[in-house]
Amino acid sequence: MRSITYLPLIFSLLCAVNVSAQSGAETTTAATQHNLMPVPLSARFNAGRLPVNKSFTVAVRGQVDDRLQAGIDRALRRIEGRTVLELARGRAGDAATATLVVESGGPGKAMPSVEEDESYSLEVSDRQAVLKAPTTVGVLRGLETFLQLLDSDRDSYFVPAVQIQDRPRFPWRGLMIDVARHFQPIEVLKRNLDGMAAVKLNVLHWHLTEDQGFRIESKKFPRLHQLGSDGLYYTQDQAREIIAYARERGIRVVPEFDLPGHATSWLVAHPELGSAPGPYTIERRPGIFEPALDPTREEVYKFLDTFFGEMAALFPDTYLHIGGDENEGKQWDRNPQIQEFMKAKGIKDNHALQTYFNKRLLPILKKHGKTMMGWDEIFQPDLPQEVVIHSWRGPGALAEAARKGYKGVLSAGYYIDLIFPTSDHYTVDPIPADSTLTAEESARVLGGEATMWSEWVSPDTIDSRIWPRTAAIAERLWSPRTVTDLDDMYRRLAVTSVRLEEVGLTHEKNQAVLLRRLAQGRNIGPLQTLVSVVEPVKEYRRNQQRPQTMLSPLTGLIDAARPDSDSARRFAATVDGLLSDAPRFEAHSQQVRNILTQWRNAGPELEAMIDSSPALHEARPLARDLDELATTGLEAMSYISRGMAPATEWRNARLAALDQAAKPKAGLEFPVISSVRQLVIAASELHQLKQMTPAAWKALVKSLAAPPKQIGKQ
Amino acid sequence: MRSITYLPLIFSLLCAVNVSAQSGAETTTAATQHNLMPVPLSARFNAGRLPVNKSFTVAVRGQVDDRLQAGIDRALRRIEGRTVLELARGRAGDAATATLVVESGGPGKAMPSVEEDESYSLEVSDRQAVLKAPTTVGVLRGLETFLQLLDSDRDSYFVPAVQIQDRPRFPWRGLMIDVARHFQPIEVLKRNLDGMAAVKLNVLHWHLTEDQGFRIESKKFPRLHQLGSDGLYYTQDQAREIIAYARERGIRVVPEFDLPGHATSWLVAHPELGSAPGPYTIERRPGIFEPALDPTREEVYKFLDTFFGEMAALFPDTYLHIGGDENEGKQWDRNPQIQEFMKAKGIKDNHALQTYFNKRLLPILKKHGKTMMGWDEIFQPDLPQEVVIHSWRGPGALAEAARKGYKGVLSAGYYIDLIFPTSDHYTVDPIPADSTLTAEESARVLGGEATMWSEWVSPDTIDSRIWPRTAAIAERLWSPRTVTDLDDMYRRLAVTSVRLEEVGLTHEKNQAVLLRRLAQGRNIGPLQTLVSVVEPVKEYRRNQQRPQTMLSPLTGLIDAARPDSDSARRFAATVDGLLSDAPRFEAHSQQVRNILTQWRNAGPELEAMIDSSPALHEARPLARDLDELATTGLEAMSYISRGMAPATEWRNARLAALDQAAKPKAGLEFPVISSVRQLVIAASELHQLKQMTPAAWKALVKSLAAPPKQIGKQ
Repeated sequence: MRSITYLPLIFSLLCAVNVSAQSGAETTTAATQHNLMPVPLSARFNAGRLPVNKSFTVAVRGQVDDRLQAGIDRALRRIEGRTVLELARGRAGDAATATLVVESGGPGKAMPSVEEDESYSLEVSDRQAVLKAPTTVGVLRGLETFLQLLDSDRDSYFVPAVQIQDRPRFPWRGLMIDVARHFQPIEVLKRNLDGMAAVKLNVLHWHLTEDQGFRIESKKFPRLHQLGSDGLYYTQDQAREIIAYARERGIRVVPEFDLPGHATSWLVAHPELGSAPGPYTIERRPGIFEPALDPTREEVYKFLDTFFGEMAALFPDTYLHIGGDENEGKQWDRNPQIQEFMKAKGIKDNHALQTYFNKRLLPILKKHGKTMMGWDEIFQPDLPQEVVIHSWRGPGALAEAARKGYKGVLSAGYYIDLIFPTSDHYTVDPIPADSTLTAEESARVLGGEATMWSEWVSPDTIDSRIWPRTAAIAERLWSPRTVTDLDDMYRRLAVTSVRLEEVGLTHEKNQAVLLRRLAQGRNIGPLQTLVSVVEPVKEYRRNQQRPQTMLSPLTGLIDAARPDSDSARRFAATVDGLLSDAPRFEAHSQQVRNILTQWRNAGPELEAMIDSSPALHEARPLARDLDELATTGLEAMSYISRGMAPATEWRNARLAALDQAAKPKAGLEFPVISSVRQLVIAASELHQLKQMTPAAWKALVKSLAAPPKQIGKQ
Repeated sequence: MRSITYLPLIFSLLCAVNVSAQSGAETTTAATQHNLMPVPLSARFNAGRLPVNKSFTVAVRGQVDDRLQAGIDRALRRIEGRTVLELARGRAGDAATATLVVESGGPGKAMPSVEEDESYSLEVSDRQAVLKAPTTVGVLRGLETFLQLLDSDRDSYFVPAVQIQDRPRFPWRGLMIDVARHFQPIEVLKRNLDGMAAVKLNVLHWHLTEDQGFRIESKKFPRLHQLGSDGLYYTQDQAREIIAYARERGIRVVPEFDLPGHATSWLVAHPELGSAPGPYTIERRPGIFEPALDPTREEVYKFLDTFFGEMAALFPDTYLHIGGDENEGKQWDRNPQIQEFMKAKGIKDNHALQTYFNKRLLPILKKHGKTMMGWDEIFQPDLPQEVVIHSWRGPGALAEAARKGYKGVLSAGYYIDLIFPTSDHYTVDPIPADSTLTAEESARVLGGEATMWSEWVSPDTIDSRIWPRTAAIAERLWSPRTVTDLDDMYRRLAVTSVRLEEVGLTHEKNQAVLLRRLAQGRNIGPLQTLVSVVEPVKEYRRNQQRPQTMLSPLTGLIDAARPDSDSARRFAATVDGLLSDAPRFEAHSQQVRNILTQWRNAGPELEAMIDSSPALHEARPLARDLDELATTGLEAMSYISRGMAPATEWRNARLAALDQAAKPKAGLEFPVISSVRQLVIAASELHQLKQMTPAAWKALVKSLAAPPKQIGKQ
């Protein structure tokens, strides 16, 4: 028993090799200890620092247009905000003495375009920073890098000396915002455009129509927005305002009008376009619905010609997204006229009928100067090659399309509405390392888009679903494929998240507001403890477990909870440290205990709060689970510290209790459970420790602590 | 020594009488244990509760207009937000079974007016709530009361049974927002209009022009906004949007165009209107400046006729504010033509010249259908009685005007920009209890306005200067004069503050954002501890101590700090408890120690944070003061607990150190100092305790702990 009692000592001896290996890894990390996100194509840090103090000035060499000047002004205001220094207004006359010299080759495209040159170089010495780019948009990208480099020490703010050459890996780096399921006012779009610019995204894909809402004013068919939106739509002036705001930041706006399915809201005003007589009402539920346009009737194309003519004039981007997804054709199946049409034309199935529809739309869009784009489903044998495929199926489907000559954009793997951790998205590559595409084929993979489907987000919560995770997707689309270090990504993401608040994003600050409302005046501390270690359930499980409609309030605990819990990740790292970093066993042990104790201490106040707030009643089982996790963890720590293995009964009872706790409640689940399970296993397997290296022991504990399979499926 | 060692026991015996007196007071308080703010004219709470659950419905009896329906819809959304229940949309058909029945006598005035009847009655039984009002605006006021009554217990949400008769004491209850010193985008105005409606304020006084900016589009004289605003102005469409938004909430919009002084920004575009030739540039400093319109030239009146004609058409309210304040007439003194004019007309001084100007303006405004209103200075012997006086001098000046037949509105005492505590504003009454005004004269006192001058607020911080303190001013202007209990006001204010977040106000949530930016990724906990016990310096001392311009960033610690520190008030109450509530001596003692320990523990992390963030360097002396306060307090507590009086040297040294700490640094000061001083005095005077009642002892400690006079003057 003695050797087990001196567990830390054994750890120390066993870990010797392992520890030196770790410090080697740290050196590598130190080389990339900057906070840039996305990481540039190349960055060579040098000795020296450029001070940023109140005499900071910017000079422009060469061309300067309004957009460039406005971009510089915004950057100056952000530097002022961080440093609390008032900087001189206006441009420095003398480039020789300016702190930052900007040199732009030209204004670039009048409207941002997929062909825009976004490259730039940034050279910072201890005397001056020089930012050069062939276009204004390149300068804007470089200014964001400059802002990300701004650092400080005891004495002053500074930018480290560095030589950066940078350009994006993919020309299409987007964020799709679904403003149809839940309408998002223009302030929401503006702050998100600023967030996009900060991480060098360049496409706002504006998902404007859905079964649940028609969100854009049509002057040609005003009943569309009047009857299809509950009054929640963008006027054309507002659309122009958003397009201009995006253009100022080098961001394109690609509108989507989802057809022929996802079209209920169109049919509320114009049932005559539908494949069934109607009448139709705005859809309030989430899901896939039957209403679809009738592709067999000429009036439909006449209508769409007029409509797309109007929209093509409103939206300057070359691309126009027609959706095309998830039409199951059930209305078509039941409509004899459509069946007859198909027979007469030799159209063999609904896929073929949809392709017929797309092929009819194509010349209409072309006539109005637009390139058609649509979701995966439109990729059918007969589809003309000029249509761009937007893939929600995956890099494989995208590669297949590229091989067949289609351009494509990836969104599979970037569905940020599904609450997966950042690391999941970060590891999805539009052209994976093992891709067999030729260079020519690869060039057809334009990039990717994070997709913010809005079934379960309000203007108050949407930012927390988009940020900061989308910054990591932005990096995937901009930075070299080889930038894949998860720990370093998470380190930089934490810095980036706080900086994203600078432009008004609410992903950090609104959680406390939601919790205060739920707590009704009580101290929200214990509620913060709970919410920090839970995550909303993933994929499409939320609505299964906690059904709501588009009219339901999104002010519950599940709405306050955020994806990819930082606290859970930190706890997992601490437990990992405990299991493998013997020299610091006591420190790790204390950290683990502190966290577990905080969970346990939250209990009584949580219970009192839940008692007084019926909206929190659904959190009662979660509060009990938290207490269970804390108690179990502390008991395990007690065994581990004393070097005393528990009885098998204890282990079995605790693991069974953890399995119960692993079942989601109120649409929330505990990502910390696997770490607590590791503690239980570690305590139970203490007798193995003497025979194993720490690495092998850690692996054993992890494998034994893996959750039973059925949990993953719930 | 023994008797002193058993200090708590002595306290217990001495406090017996005092304690029973306190429980009497609690009973009185219990009678008003509701969270209504402003307190209604009369409210009789009965037994019973009306459940608010997902079958909650609203029926309307009698007239219903769009504004009424929209008001009900907003209320329903807020109930949903709090309860996380989805309520049925649309009105209940059957008033007999509806949860809430709304009965409106009529739509009221087309535009909100100072004559609007805002009264309502609300009767809630355990079966139904009935809200009756003669006008739609009355209903809106009653709906806010209903929302404030919404409460919960273990089982469900409910509204307590109550009979309320309510109407405002004053018809003019305003918030002035200066959008000229720092421009405030329309989102800021909208959320503040919602906040105003929540506490039954009914006038947005829109201070649109200043030396530092001309903020409204003029189509007649477009150079005014083009050259006078840095591009930061409201279009006329936006002005109409704000007016409509205010009207929806029963709020009037009174525009102010400050003349003849505070007029630099006018003269940037139109120097020909000035009393000196110019040229003029937008003023960037705070303060009082010389530029003034030339009241002797006919072109000026012609210009103003056209301008006010345009503005009168844009702003529907009957009242138009012409400012008129702080014109020192220095340009007039130096202008020979003006001097000659005065001599020729027998105008004896600048006051008389300004009255001449006002009298010339009066018919112009009348012609355009407007009643003139101006600041105190316009109240000169010759001023026509129809002009409304807006008093920044005080209730006395206002009473004098009322006696002379002028209507008036009070803002003296409601200058929320000056960072005074809520209690200061709350105790200022437009018609104080000792007023000698007749009923007729009193009727001329229309009400009051909180004034948010914007020298030192950005869109990110302005809410924290307005709220929650303005809710207490709203109560002063609505509720009976006799509603004056400060403790009860503060209790209700805390609830109100959280509820004000519901409409999007940022007074609570933006502090963390500012601190996170300053902390640059470090844990903001210690910074929150510091910022929670400091307040920005009062009155006009900020700019003396920490000079800035209108272009300076407002992102420093002073901007994160808020007026009327809750933590300081709670600490003072805890120390008060310690000194007088002997039965709970140990509990109070522990609370005091906990707080002091938290201050002390913040120290090391604060120092580290300050070291790494140059923007926080100015906080270094504050961090040291906090440490000093903590150490001093803990030492004093140690003496008190041991019943051992300290040496005189200790007392003198500690008091001297507190005097040093009382000197503001970085524009911030510690409102907790007087409580720490009380602890030092209490420790020093322990030998007195045996001879005195606790009340007398507390009074002695308080009097001895009063800060030296010179502190107050700094």
